[in-house]
Amino acid sequence: MGGIGVFDSGMGGLDVAAALSKTLPNERLVYLGDNARVPYGTKSASMVRTYTHEAAHWLLQHNIKALVIACNTASAVVDMTALERELEIPVFGMIEAGVQACAEQIISQGDVDPNIVILATPGTVRSNAYQEALINRFPKLSQLAIACPIFVPLVEMGWENHSLMPQLVEAQLTEGQRKQQPWANLASTKHTIYLLGCTHYPMMRDSIIMGLNRLHQTPFSCVDGAQSVAFLLKSRLGKLALLNQKVGPNRHTAYLTDDPNSTTAVELALRFWRKRGGLGELTIQSAS
Amino acid sequence: MGGIGVFDSGMGGLDVAAALSKTLPNERLVYLGDNARVPYGTKSASMVRTYTHEAAHWLLQHNIKALVIACNTASAVVDMTALERELEIPVFGMIEAGVQACAEQIISQGDVDPNIVILATPGTVRSNAYQEALINRFPKLSQLAIACPIFVPLVEMGWENHSLMPQLVEAQLTEGQRKQQPWANLASTKHTIYLLGCTHYPMMRDSIIMGLNRLHQTPFSCVDGAQSVAFLLKSRLGKLALLNQKVGPNRHTAYLTDDPNSTTAVELALRFWRKRGGLGELTIQSAS
Repeated sequence: MGGIGVFDSGMGGLDVAAALSKTLPNERLVYLGDNARVPYGTKSASMVRTYTHEAAHWLLQHNIKALVIACNTASAVVDMTALERELEIPVFGMIEAGVQACAEQIISQGDVDPNIVILATPGTVRSNAYQEALINRFPKLSQLAIACPIFVPLVEMGWENHSLMPQLVEAQLTEGQRKQQPWANLASTKHTIYLLGCTHYPMMRDSIIMGLNRLHQTPFSCVDGAQSVAFLLKSRLGKLALLNQKVGPNRHTAYLTDDPNSTTAVELALRFWRKRGGLGELTIQSAS
Repeated sequence: MGGIGVFDSGMGGLDVAAALSKTLPNERLVYLGDNARVPYGTKSASMVRTYTHEAAHWLLQHNIKALVIACNTASAVVDMTALERELEIPVFGMIEAGVQACAEQIISQGDVDPNIVILATPGTVRSNAYQEALINRFPKLSQLAIACPIFVPLVEMGWENHSLMPQLVEAQLTEGQRKQQPWANLASTKHTIYLLGCTHYPMMRDSIIMGLNRLHQTPFSCVDGAQSVAFLLKSRLGKLALLNQKVGPNRHTAYLTDDPNSTTAVELALRFWRKRGGLGELTIQSAS
């Protein structure tokens, strides 16, 4: 039986892959990281669409029965329904999963008109994909989307717990908010949900929380879509009788478009994979 | 008569192009920025070589009589002599130009055993290109190379004069130095030359100086190769009788591999072009 394809612009999607490996321990993951062209979050929507279609078709040639677009920017600009029709396998993106994660948090709070702040790349924010999906699901929502272009490079260089990070998070959020429409409710007494809308952001969750503590005294929580996409995929594969019944753990392969022998690439890949406790053996090799 | 090709991984090379436009005001510049795959500084040497060869041949199809590889990372990993033989036109990279800029500073100080600190991308530092070129030219040199992966994204998001920058520069340099061999002389009483070995770094020169002021009290200066490469090119084209005699100013074209209609891309391009006072009219268009 085919594996589950997971695509990301670089290594960040291995955080999502780790969630998949734990929720679907009988499934074999086939990961493709386009680190020869990373990052996507600062590139145009048309370029990201071209790259994502190339990657989806590459993965389709590698025996997959379902595809997860783990990159939030790609998920935001690619039409998932059209891609699913084209590939003829189930396709999941991160937007639906992120909204689902917010819904679970809202239900647990019993709040019908929540405050949600989307933290994401410039490309994801510009696409309006999260904003539209959230307002469709929660019509009474107050929301704000803040582009955080500095977060990805900070995580990639291993600064996620650097002592300067809380100040950097504060500066990035303050600037991002100033560039968008001001959100009067940010300092209100309501609980605010911060949606970490990029695969890299959960890695720096502690620093984001410390930065938010500098910004406002009201209660808040941080959610991300990695676990939700794993549950959504499991549910759909179950309905389609596509779940592997053979007991794992499995051997997973991460293919990289840039040199997989560089120590830096391997270290970064393993940092993402291990942070959420990826299960099974992960082999890293060249996509070419 | 053909124009002068200028290649960079993104927009940063427009800083070098601006220097060329002032030193060679009769020449038409044909710029190619590979912003669909930027940055190069964190990618493998083999990938950067592939991209650079593709770009050089693309520019050769666009009527150029000489080529400047304005990207320091590409200059560091590509064999310029082999590329020149292959293209059959003069080819200049930034390594020779950066060394030339150091030489001028050293001569002005009358110092025979200078301290030089190279600030560059991880790819440039790893290549050892600057280190080898400097030691060949100044055998009594004490040198240190520090990879600064955070500088490019900070400049790209317009943070070059942000109030946090001096602290960020200090943190990056301290960390970069700790990861490499320690350099005991850094805190000595000697004058130190900082070579800004990436097209983006001159944009944040003031912040680099403020960061260095936090690190050591001894005298230092910052140099970069943009002006030197313009002088080296002018001298060589003069010897080859390839200089355009028709009086400018010229119309220059910057071709971009990603969407040239995005406001962000155009703004970033013009920031680099104007910072050094680019002369003539610059049109930005798609490379495809």
